[in-house]
Amino acid sequence: GITPYAPEMYKEVPSPGVAVGLAWTQMGGEILFVESSVSKGSGRMILTGNLGEVMKESATTAMSFIKAHAEELGVDTDKIEKSDVHVHIPEGAIPKDGPSAGVTMLTSLASIFTGKPVRPFLAMTGEITLRGKVLPVGGIKEKILAAKRAGMKEIILCKENRRHVEDINTDYITGLKFHYVGNMQEVLARAIS
Amino acid sequence: GITPYAPEMYKEVPSPGVAVGLAWTQMGGEILFVESSVSKGSGRMILTGNLGEVMKESATTAMSFIKAHAEELGVDTDKIEKSDVHVHIPEGAIPKDGPSAGVTMLTSLASIFTGKPVRPFLAMTGEITLRGKVLPVGGIKEKILAAKRAGMKEIILCKENRRHVEDINTDYITGLKFHYVGNMQEVLARAIS
Amino acid sequence: GITPYAPEMYKEVPSPGVAVGLAWTQMGGEILFVESSVSKGSGRMILTGNLGEVMKESATTAMSFIKAHAEELGVDTDKIEKSDVHVHIPEGAIPKDGPSAGVTMLTSLASIFTGKPVRPFLAMTGEITLRGKVLPVGGIKEKILAAKRAGMKEIILCKENRRHVEDINTDYITGLKFHYVGNMQEVLARAIS
Amino acid sequence: GITPYAPEMYKEVPSPGVAVGLAWTQMGGEILFVESSVSKGSGRMILTGNLGEVMKESATTAMSFIKAHAEELGVDTDKIEKSDVHVHIPEGAIPKDGPSAGVTMLTSLASIFTGKPVRPFLAMTGEITLRGKVLPVGGIKEKILAAKRAGMKEIILCKENRRHVEDINTDYITGLKFHYVGNMQEVLARAIS
Amino acid sequence: GITPYAPEMYKEVPSPGVAVGLAWTQMGGEILFVESSVSKGSGRMILTGNLGEVMKESATTAMSFIKAHAEELGVDTDKIEKSDVHVHIPEGAIPKDGPSAGVTMLTSLASIFTGKPVRPFLAMTGEITLRGKVLPVGGIKEKILAAKRAGMKEIILCKENRRHVEDINTDYITGLKFHYVGNMQEVLARAIS
Amino acid sequence: GITPYAPEMYKEVPSPGVAVGLAWTQMGGEILFVESSVSKGSGRMILTGNLGEVMKESATTAMSFIKAHAEELGVDTDKIEKSDVHVHIPEGAIPKDGPSAGVTMLTSLASIFTGKPVRPFLAMTGEITLRGKVLPVGGIKEKILAAKRAGMKEIILCKENRRHVEDINTDYITGLKFHYVGNMQEVLARAIS
Ligand SMILES: [Ca+2]
Ligand SMILES: [Ca+2]
Ligand SMILES: [Ca+2]
Ligand SMILES: [Ca+2]
Ligand SMILES: [Ca+2]
Ligand SMILES: [Ca+2]
Ligand SMILES: [Ca+2]
Ligand SMILES: [Ca+2]
Ligand SMILES: [Ca+2]
Ligand SMILES: [Ca+2]
Ligand SMILES: [Ca+2]
Ligand SMILES: [Ca+2]
Repeated sequence: GITPYAPEMYKEVPSPGVAVGLAWTQMGGEILFVESSVSKGSGRMILTGNLGEVMKESATTAMSFIKAHAEELGVDTDKIEKSDVHVHIPEGAIPKDGPSAGVTMLTSLASIFTGKPVRPFLAMTGEITLRGKVLPVGGIKEKILAAKRAGMKEIILCKENRRHVEDINTDYITGLKFHYVGNMQEVLARAIS
Repeated sequence: GITPYAPEMYKEVPSPGVAVGLAWTQMGGEILFVESSVSKGSGRMILTGNLGEVMKESATTAMSFIKAHAEELGVDTDKIEKSDVHVHIPEGAIPKDGPSAGVTMLTSLASIFTGKPVRPFLAMTGEITLRGKVLPVGGIKEKILAAKRAGMKEIILCKENRRHVEDINTDYITGLKFHYVGNMQEVLARAIS
Repeated sequence: GITPYAPEMYKEVPSPGVAVGLAWTQMGGEILFVESSVSKGSGRMILTGNLGEVMKESATTAMSFIKAHAEELGVDTDKIEKSDVHVHIPEGAIPKDGPSAGVTMLTSLASIFTGKPVRPFLAMTGEITLRGKVLPVGGIKEKILAAKRAGMKEIILCKENRRHVEDINTDYITGLKFHYVGNMQEVLARAIS
Repeated sequence: GITPYAPEMYKEVPSPGVAVGLAWTQMGGEILFVESSVSKGSGRMILTGNLGEVMKESATTAMSFIKAHAEELGVDTDKIEKSDVHVHIPEGAIPKDGPSAGVTMLTSLASIFTGKPVRPFLAMTGEITLRGKVLPVGGIKEKILAAKRAGMKEIILCKENRRHVEDINTDYITGLKFHYVGNMQEVLARAIS
Repeated sequence: GITPYAPEMYKEVPSPGVAVGLAWTQMGGEILFVESSVSKGSGRMILTGNLGEVMKESATTAMSFIKAHAEELGVDTDKIEKSDVHVHIPEGAIPKDGPSAGVTMLTSLASIFTGKPVRPFLAMTGEITLRGKVLPVGGIKEKILAAKRAGMKEIILCKENRRHVEDINTDYITGLKFHYVGNMQEVLARAIS
Repeated sequence: GITPYAPEMYKEVPSPGVAVGLAWTQMGGEILFVESSVSKGSGRMILTGNLGEVMKESATTAMSFIKAHAEELGVDTDKIEKSDVHVHIPEGAIPKDGPSAGVTMLTSLASIFTGKPVRPFLAMTGEITLRGKVLPVGGIKEKILAAKRAGMKEIILCKENRRHVEDINTDYITGLKFHYVGNMQEVLARAIS
């Protein structure tokens, strides 16, 4: 794949709605971008990027979490009702699936609805539940190496994935800072300031 | 699978809408969480978690039961009409099907619409019908052992499943309390106080 | 299958919307329950219970018959328009299909919309047409034996199925009373008083 | 199949919306009933009876013809807009397809919307086009023999099917009167008085 | 197939909405009729006649062209918004697909919305684009011979199909007049006067 | 395929909504036209031309980008809400898929909504993301040769595709001017003046 690198990316003014996730493919780990935009509408959600059913369900779950916690997250529910939100993951030619982009989707949506950009050089991976729990996911080693290759500096993971990080040779991950979390409130506290 | 354990779970303030069910997979028994949330809407239902057709029908049936018995259950029908309700069962990567989560779905929905949390350390399994009957289900032994492993203390079952419990070596189930029921009114009396 | 038995069932106060049908499976005959409930809505119909296309069409046809004959049946058309009706047939794990539940569905719907319960210990089987004709169906012997086993006392059949009853050894069906009908008006006169 | 016979059928008061068609199956010819009913609604069409795509398209085409020629046919367009119409063909267990029920569907719909019953002992077969042309269909011999067996006395066919009637041994069709037509106006003039 | 012949067809008063196309099947060329009708509605389009996806897209494209050029074509946009339009191609038993009926569909739609009949004894074939370009299509020889057999006198083709006509033995096409066009404005100038 | 050539095309007055893309098929490179039109409507999008899922997602993403950047692009959001937009890619018989028409679709949509035609003799290829990034695509050599054959003079490509152009023998591409871009703002600055 043709991956945009972080150093170049973060030269630009950061725009709300873009969050960096970590994917695990047959080719190894890779970073992926979750991009959200809103426009005047009626509360609908559009999902593109060749997403499978499970990944689409992650986005739906993320959106319901935001609606149910709008006040706590500083999101205007009026804005949600009067907008359509579009979540896209490049690259369209590659089918994507699985629940592990859940935290990234929720972060991207929280960013677009609050108007606050996501912290630069930060990547994340983890399943979310409707309650906002973060669940552990697979492929941690490959994902972390991909984050490092792409210039990321901080990584958010489920605390139950800590042991998978501790199994990695420390030479490979020097310079990376890890945040282990149990729920989405902790993710958003780290990701959106 | 990576199961969150009950002791940790119940350290938190219990939140309405979460109920614990029991599933029976090729890997043995397992607990599952049914999570419901509501947001401003127009009476629609969203179902996620890689659910098969039969399991989705259980949720639809549970919702119709609540609508038809709203007054008796202390649920404001206005709230139902002006909300969208989302029912999610983690983990998204695992396909789930069958009718045995019926009682858990109905309990989760009754909890979110009344705002009252489900009793802690309580698990349940059983099919529901539109009248509110509870029907017996399979895999009782495996499900009960999983509940015990996960730290559950009480289990609600259909009374026609009593004989399957009585077939289990009592050593395996000491400390568990069983409630045998015939209809949803009995389930909710036990589960939501 | 795990069949609830009639004697127990009829100890409860009968509730409108429940009618007993007769099904013919590879395992022999069986009784089935058709359950209907209504809630505030906009005239939609929800069908659950793992129903095939033909069985769903029976329910649609039954509903159209009730709409077209609302006055004659004592049903308030305003109630129909302002309600959603849900028809469910337990048990969700078993796929069900075919037109022979037509009379039971129409009886269940007539019962829920008039608020009058169906006569106890009564079972029925037969296809319906949009005009309200009752058409004969197969598996009569197996269905009748199942009705007797389940404690039923009266059975409604299409008059063109009379000869299939007369072929059964009378020892097997003593105590059962048969009603042979040609149209839905005759069914409802027997089933709902 | 279990065919209701015409003599019995026509003892009853004829009801608008029922028209007799002729079908050609692997078992030979058969009569079929097209039944229409209307109820308060919003111009939707419901099609049941295990109908294939082509047969459903015939019903859609018939309805559009009636809408486009409402005035000429004496149909109140207000009634069409404020009604849902249901077209059903018994028997639900038998899949049905093909365009040859077009004339029967249009006759049934014209009958229900004008409130005038279809002439008794009359059967028909033929494809319709949106302009109201009647096109010839196959299986004429088998269909006519089935009509005769069922007690029909008059048959409407496309004029391009005349030669198929003339090929039948006259002994088989004595007592049957044939009407050959080119368009729907001629069908309706014969069928609905 | 059973093709209606032009001489008979044009004895009748021509009705708006009917245009003659040319199809190319495994059996050789054939004429086909595109029939449109409008009724009171809300801007929806109904497509019947056993049409494949590509052919349905031609109709959608034709309708968009008419909407975008309504003023130029003398079509009242109010009429479009307040009508449903139905496009049908007999014969329903024959699956039809491909883009070559585009010009015929656009002509049929322009005719029904302007109320002006299509010129008699005129057939046409060609793909359309949303801009109104006419693109060349295949099977020219077979289509032209079919048009001649059916009594057609004029044929509209894409100018890039001229060389396919020039390859046909002139004996076969005497008496036929060809119009070569590049866009829909030229088609409609010839077809609807 | 039968490709319209640029010289002829640009003799006409250029119409807004038409943009030239480059496709890569088993037969080599080819130019393709993306055509957009708008009509009075309610914000819906119609996509035709035998487009696969990924290509449809490109169009959806392009439309969301335009909505989110309407002001910056000089597009009236009222016009978007009160229009239906149709995007078509001839030729309907050829299935098309992949993300590389993204830039062309966005250009076509920006052109139709601003009313400004696309610069003549300009072709382009590239995936877009929801943020407006342009991503590199495959088949560059074949696409460029096709653009030259069709008479194009300028080509817009992703800057990460520059090295694929530099690998082409310069004899093949004399007279072509290349514009390398990173985002959609740069594309539109070149394409629509
Ligand atoms: Ca990549
Ligand atoms: Ca997809
Ligand atoms: Ca698990
Ligand atoms: Ca699924
Ligand atoms: Ca059973
Ligand atoms: Ca099903
Ligand atoms: Ca029959
Ligand atoms: Ca069917
Ligand atoms: Ca033909
Ligand atoms: Ca079809
Ligand atoms: Ca081509
Ligand atoms: Ca397609």
